[in-house]
Amino acid sequence: MSGPRLTEDELIATCFAPLAGPGGLRLLDDAALITPPADEEIVVTTDALVAGVHFFGDDPPGAIAKKALRVNLSDLAAKGAEPLGFVISLALAPKWEIEWLAAFAGGLGEDAHAYSCPLLGGDTVKTPGPLTLSITALGSVPKGRMAPRTGVQAGDRIYVSGTIGDAAIGLKLRLAEAADAPWRAGLGEQDRAFLLDRFLLPQPRMALRAAMRADARAGMDVSDGLIGDLSKMLKVSGVSATIELARVPLSPAAEAAVRASPDLFEVAVTGGDDYEVLASVDPEAAAAFEVQAQAAGVRVTAIGTARGGAGEPPVFLDFRGEPRQFARGSFSHF
Amino acid sequence: MSGPRLTEDELIATCFAPLAGPGGLRLLDDAALITPPADEEIVVTTDALVAGVHFFGDDPPGAIAKKALRVNLSDLAAKGAEPLGFVISLALAPKWEIEWLAAFAGGLGEDAHAYSCPLLGGDTVKTPGPLTLSITALGSVPKGRMAPRTGVQAGDRIYVSGTIGDAAIGLKLRLAEAADAPWRAGLGEQDRAFLLDRFLLPQPRMALRAAMRADARAGMDVSDGLIGDLSKMLKVSGVSATIELARVPLSPAAEAAVRASPDLFEVAVTGGDDYEVLASVDPEAAAAFEVQAQAAGVRVTAIGTARGGAGEPPVFLDFRGEPRQFARGSFSHF
Repeated sequence: MSGPRLTEDELIATCFAPLAGPGGLRLLDDAALITPPADEEIVVTTDALVAGVHFFGDDPPGAIAKKALRVNLSDLAAKGAEPLGFVISLALAPKWEIEWLAAFAGGLGEDAHAYSCPLLGGDTVKTPGPLTLSITALGSVPKGRMAPRTGVQAGDRIYVSGTIGDAAIGLKLRLAEAADAPWRAGLGEQDRAFLLDRFLLPQPRMALRAAMRADARAGMDVSDGLIGDLSKMLKVSGVSATIELARVPLSPAAEAAVRASPDLFEVAVTGGDDYEVLASVDPEAAAAFEVQAQAAGVRVTAIGTARGGAGEPPVFLDFRGEPRQFARGSFSHF
Repeated sequence: MSGPRLTEDELIATCFAPLAGPGGLRLLDDAALITPPADEEIVVTTDALVAGVHFFGDDPPGAIAKKALRVNLSDLAAKGAEPLGFVISLALAPKWEIEWLAAFAGGLGEDAHAYSCPLLGGDTVKTPGPLTLSITALGSVPKGRMAPRTGVQAGDRIYVSGTIGDAAIGLKLRLAEAADAPWRAGLGEQDRAFLLDRFLLPQPRMALRAAMRADARAGMDVSDGLIGDLSKMLKVSGVSATIELARVPLSPAAEAAVRASPDLFEVAVTGGDDYEVLASVDPEAAAAFEVQAQAAGVRVTAIGTARGGAGEPPVFLDFRGEPRQFARGSFSHF
C-alpha cells in the first residue's frame, strides 16, 4: 500500500493520535492546551531537519523521528527544563508510504513516552521537495532557573557532558568518501557501530537537567560543533576563555579514529551533531555540579576557564600548550 | 547582493533579532522563555506552509511572512486565546537573496507588532526543495475558557465570522485557468483586488477572541473550507447540524462572481483559506455573543443549528430548502 490514500484526518487518527498527551486533546482539536506548573516559566525551542541535509533520507523512519525530537530535547536539557510536550510540522515528499509513516510515528511515540514529552499537535502538509520536519518542544523551569546562553562569567569553569566528535566521525564513516580511508579499516566493528549510532541517534542529556538548574550559570547544547558553539556562548556572554583541547573528552572509538588519522581531531571538535551539554559553572559550585552529574550518571569534564575579554575569541591550547586556530569553528547546516 | 553570504548568526542578528520580544532573549539564546500569566493555560498551535502549495513563491516576501503568522493567529483567535509569541522554522531554498529575506522579516515584524505577538526564536536551515515555513504560536486563556473544537452541543447556534469564499475565488483569479473565464471579466477592478487580497493576506479575527472566551462552547477557524471544517467540528463533538446555505455570508465581490458563474458557490464553501471563525453558541448566550462581536467590529452570522445525531453528516439545505451534497467537503493541502 503506498501513496497518499489516507486523508490528513485519517492519517492523524491512525498514526499520531495514539501519541497524544492529555494536552493534545486526542489531536481532535486544532490547538493544544498546556497547564504550566505554578511558578514555572515556559522554555520554547524549535529545530528543523531536512532530508539530505540533516539526516539521510533512507535512514530508518523511526530513527529520523527520534532524532528530530531528541535534538529539541537536548536544548531543553541544556536549559535545565522539564519537557512538557511538543508539536510537529511534517512536510511529506511525494510518494510517501503509509508503512514509512507508521514506522516514523512508532519511533516518535517510543521517544515521547521514554522522555515523558507527549505529542501536543502538529500540521501535516505535502511538499514537492524533500521530507522536512520541524519540532517545537516546550519545557518548564522554576522562575529564574533557566540556564541561559548569555550567563557565562569570568572565572567560570566550562564543562562539557559525555564525549565529543563521535557523531561527526560517524558521519564521515557513513559518507562514501571514507569507504577506503585507512582509518576506517583500522576501527573495530564495535567502534564503527558506536560512531555510526551516535550520528543516527543523539542521546540528549536529560539526566543533567537538575544539575543545570541548580548549578549552571549558562548552558547550551553542542549541535554545530564544540569550538563554534562554545565561541558563540562566550561571545554573547561578553567574555572569553582558555580551553585545553587535551581535556576535550573523546570516546575510545573516536580516540582510535583520531590516532589513525590525526586530522579527525578537528572534525571531532568542529563537526557537530554531538548533542552534549556545555555548562558554565561558578567555581564555588563546581564540586556540587560534578557530584550531581555523577549521581545522574552523566560524565562531565572541565575543559577550561572563562575570563574577561569581551569580543576576544577564546584561546584553544593544543596538546603542547600552544594556541591552535581552526579554519572553521563549526559545521553549518545553513 | 545575493546568496548565502551571511552566516546563520549574522542573518538572525540582522533580520530577525529586531523582531524579538523580551521572551526571545534577543535571539542570542537557543531557547525562549515565557512567563505565562497566572491562572492561565497555554494554547499551542502550529501551521506549515510550502511555496507552490500554500502560497505562490513569487508573492511579495512580506506577504508570505504575514500569511504564515496570520494563519496561526487565526487559530488562536478561534480558541479565544491572547497571543504570547511565536517561533518560526525557515527552510530556505537555494539562491535565496538577502533582500528577499529582509523584506520577509520586515513583514513578519510589522505583524508581530500589529498583533502583539513577538518573535520568540526559531531555526533557519537550507533545503534543496521549495521555501518551507513552519510557525508555532503560543497564546493564553484563563483556565477552562479555551473554545475547543469538540464542544458543540445539540441546540447550539452555529456562527461564522466575516465572509466565506473570498480567498478561494481569489485563488481562482490568480490561476491562469481563470484568465479567460467570463466571470472574471464581469468583476469590477475593486472586486478583483479585494478577492486577490483575501487570498494573499488573511485577516485573523483577533477582535472576536473575547467573545469566543465568553460565549462560545466550541470554536475553530475555517482554513480548509467551511463545509469540511464544520463537518469536522460536528463529528468530533458527536453531534450533527442543519445548515442553511442561503445564510452563508458572501462579500459583494464573491456574490458578483457567484452570480456570473454559479459553480463558484461550491468553490466558496469548500475552497478554504478563509481564516474566519466558526463558533458554536448556546442559544441562551447567542444575544450576548452577537452584541460582543458587534462591539468588536466583527460581523457574525448564524448559519444553522446543531442537533443530536453522532456520526450523521450535517444537512446542508440549499436556497430552495433541499439538501445539497458536496463532492468534496474541503480543500486538502495534504
